[in-house]
Amino acid sequence: MEPVAWVGGSSPEHERIIGWQAPPLKFGVGATREIGYELRRAGVRSVLLVTDRVLAGLGLPARVAKLIEQEGIAVSVFDRTQVEPTDESVTRAALELAPLRVDGFVGLGGGSAIDTAKMLNLLLTYPGRSVRDYLNAPIGIGARIPGPLKPLVAVPTTAGSGSECTAMVALGVSGLNVKTGISDLRLLPSLALIDPANTLTLPPEVTASSGYDVLTHACESYTARPYDRRPPYPAPADRPLYVGANPISDVWVEQALRLVGRYLRRAVLNPDDLEARIGMSQAASYAGMGFGNAGTHIPHACAYPIAGLVRDYRPEGYAVDHAMVPHGAAVVSTAPAAFEFTYPTSPERHLRAAELLGADLGGVSTAHGADVLPATLQQLVADTGGPGGLASFGYSGKDLPALVEGALKQQRLLVCCPRDVAAHDLKRILDGSMTG
Amino acid sequence: MEPVAWVGGSSPEHERIIGWQAPPLKFGVGATREIGYELRRAGVRSVLLVTDRVLAGLGLPARVAKLIEQEGIAVSVFDRTQVEPTDESVTRAALELAPLRVDGFVGLGGGSAIDTAKMLNLLLTYPGRSVRDYLNAPIGIGARIPGPLKPLVAVPTTAGSGSECTAMVALGVSGLNVKTGISDLRLLPSLALIDPANTLTLPPEVTASSGYDVLTHACESYTARPYDRRPPYPAPADRPLYVGANPISDVWVEQALRLVGRYLRRAVLNPDDLEARIGMSQAASYAGMGFGNAGTHIPHACAYPIAGLVRDYRPEGYAVDHAMVPHGAAVVSTAPAAFEFTYPTSPERHLRAAELLGADLGGVSTAHGADVLPATLQQLVADTGGPGGLASFGYSGKDLPALVEGALKQQRLLVCCPRDVAAHDLKRILDGSMTG
Ligand SMILES: [Fe+2]
Ligand SMILES: [Fe+2]
Repeated sequence: MEPVAWVGGSSPEHERIIGWQAPPLKFGVGATREIGYELRRAGVRSVLLVTDRVLAGLGLPARVAKLIEQEGIAVSVFDRTQVEPTDESVTRAALELAPLRVDGFVGLGGGSAIDTAKMLNLLLTYPGRSVRDYLNAPIGIGARIPGPLKPLVAVPTTAGSGSECTAMVALGVSGLNVKTGISDLRLLPSLALIDPANTLTLPPEVTASSGYDVLTHACESYTARPYDRRPPYPAPADRPLYVGANPISDVWVEQALRLVGRYLRRAVLNPDDLEARIGMSQAASYAGMGFGNAGTHIPHACAYPIAGLVRDYRPEGYAVDHAMVPHGAAVVSTAPAAFEFTYPTSPERHLRAAELLGADLGGVSTAHGADVLPATLQQLVADTGGPGGLASFGYSGKDLPALVEGALKQQRLLVCCPRDVAAHDLKRILDGSMTG
Repeated sequence: MEPVAWVGGSSPEHERIIGWQAPPLKFGVGATREIGYELRRAGVRSVLLVTDRVLAGLGLPARVAKLIEQEGIAVSVFDRTQVEPTDESVTRAALELAPLRVDGFVGLGGGSAIDTAKMLNLLLTYPGRSVRDYLNAPIGIGARIPGPLKPLVAVPTTAGSGSECTAMVALGVSGLNVKTGISDLRLLPSLALIDPANTLTLPPEVTASSGYDVLTHACESYTARPYDRRPPYPAPADRPLYVGANPISDVWVEQALRLVGRYLRRAVLNPDDLEARIGMSQAASYAGMGFGNAGTHIPHACAYPIAGLVRDYRPEGYAVDHAMVPHGAAVVSTAPAAFEFTYPTSPERHLRAAELLGADLGGVSTAHGADVLPATLQQLVADTGGPGGLASFGYSGKDLPALVEGALKQQRLLVCCPRDVAAHDLKRILDGSMTG
């Protein structure tokens, strides 16, 4: 199939403007060695390195701290990042770190560490405001970030979240069992320093789950409600960061899909395949460049309650002392049913996504292709030992009302779905995702 | 053909790191209307709008100034941008504007206006330094830009130079008949505001020539000496902005080639084809995202003396009172011969570029494909009324020594050529480009 063509952008009845941004990238095996140079170039003299305990145990943060100190920059380390951070976890960290005086930040880890670094930059740079001030209404008051933040270098150690390339943070809200986000251009890292060698030590389960996140980011942003099939925004300030599928996000997303199709299996099945690690690291950042501007929809909306309501599922490969569903496993589990639901809005996009992932479209017609992308996703998940459906996390039919309710709260994401989504649609999608 | 795969990045004997950056983009028909909002958001209260006389005659700068003033921002207009600016032209403008106090800049026009705006930002923000201080040795002393520049919004009115997306300025050096550049991350615009509607008034000749620049940027950066087949740089600061072909620039360049193949003929032959204008505007910026990081090589190196040594050629469609060769016409005229010369270094890239431009590769083998990309370029130029070769600009065999000498001075570009280039190679390429 040819790439999906855009003709739009010219109808005055519709929104016609795309906003897009990306941090500067430094990409390559060995790029970590240049972190001290980059911080010095940004004028940083004292930095907070935000990371997690698992990485600390592997020794990477100590090595990175030494590289930074060699450039004459003081380093403080915070290694107690909570997996899937919440307003509470970042507030606690900010309180504890309040006496610290730093003029720069490094987020070293997966999405949780990078997001926590983004939040600490915000909370320590503008003390006296709470996390809830910045959260979207009605949970918070949706305040804008008051001014510039300090330089922040994001160093991903998973090929997953794409947080190194996005201007947002995902946060759980304690007590409410929901997850929400803060989107603000000022949250864009000042540099994404992506060294595929940092992903070589990931256990296969984490490689797989991170990869499912990439896969789902790419499929969701590729099929999101297009930017030029929305009503115009009353004023430029009303245009959200998530503008919908657009030709610029497509450029990134198509390449991300191609790389996931080519490299995810290899990276999971042989952790030492550096070429596959390079490919997946690219795919993660490229998908970040895409979904961070276009948006995600049903699978991410459903993932929040799937992660939030879990009772006692403990994933392999993750060093956690509580029940959890890894984010990537959560998002991919409803993806097949979700894309069957969205198929009629753009058969050619769904088929093209499957093809980029490696599916053979021979003999497929758009009239009878709704199962092609779902089957392609299921095969990829099965080949990499992924989850067998929501039932494997301990969910059953009696959890559906709570799961639906949780997903419906994610209107900021559901508005990006290419067709309107009602409670009964979500129920059918979640119910259809119980077994793999 | 499948996209060209990268496997590299892992050999310690070679450079392995890619630097890449892009400005935030705002793209779409009507985006110009948001310029005041964007300047206000950047904290600008008084702006210098840099443009040219032709545009001033068409009224666009006055409309843009009004849009900015509606947001309470004071506007000064400089509309005497020189086509193909030189150290002298920008110094003269800076001297004249020295009394002005502004805290932001808008570059409205083609590459010349945007580059002049970049230079005025530099010269007015850091007075007391001359242009030559910043030019590469031996012409200048290659000084780094001392600190941050003021916000600069680039608003291209051609689909050509890609300057809205690059961190560089191209400048002629008066008295020396050479063109050189300044590359510095600080020159990256703070916003590229790309409104395809602004290109609707371009005459066909200017549309064509600008399009050839896009076409050549894309082909040159796609075939440039790859980033991972160069020796490592001694220190991060030694890595040039032009790192060579790499997987990130490829993402942009492949899409640019596809768009040029689809839309250049339409945009030239029917100036009112808005869809084609949208496609070419995307292509120009995408190619800028590619070549601004990967680099250009032989065609751009040769274009400098081709433009510099011209005696009395006057292009149609350009309102100039002196002899000139439009930049796009100059670069495309040696492109076919140049890509025949570079073909053996990567047949698959050259063939893939041709295919993305629309060539049919049926029956072509890599062993006998050296003429496919040259023929594809020649057909595209012929279909759009482009130049018939260097002879059509008034050059003949006796000009070859001076043209070769001028091209050889562009070592900063020639180092990006995928094979070593000697004087006799350039002579053969230039000689082979005399007729179309
Ligand atoms: Fe995600
Ligand atoms: Fe050019």
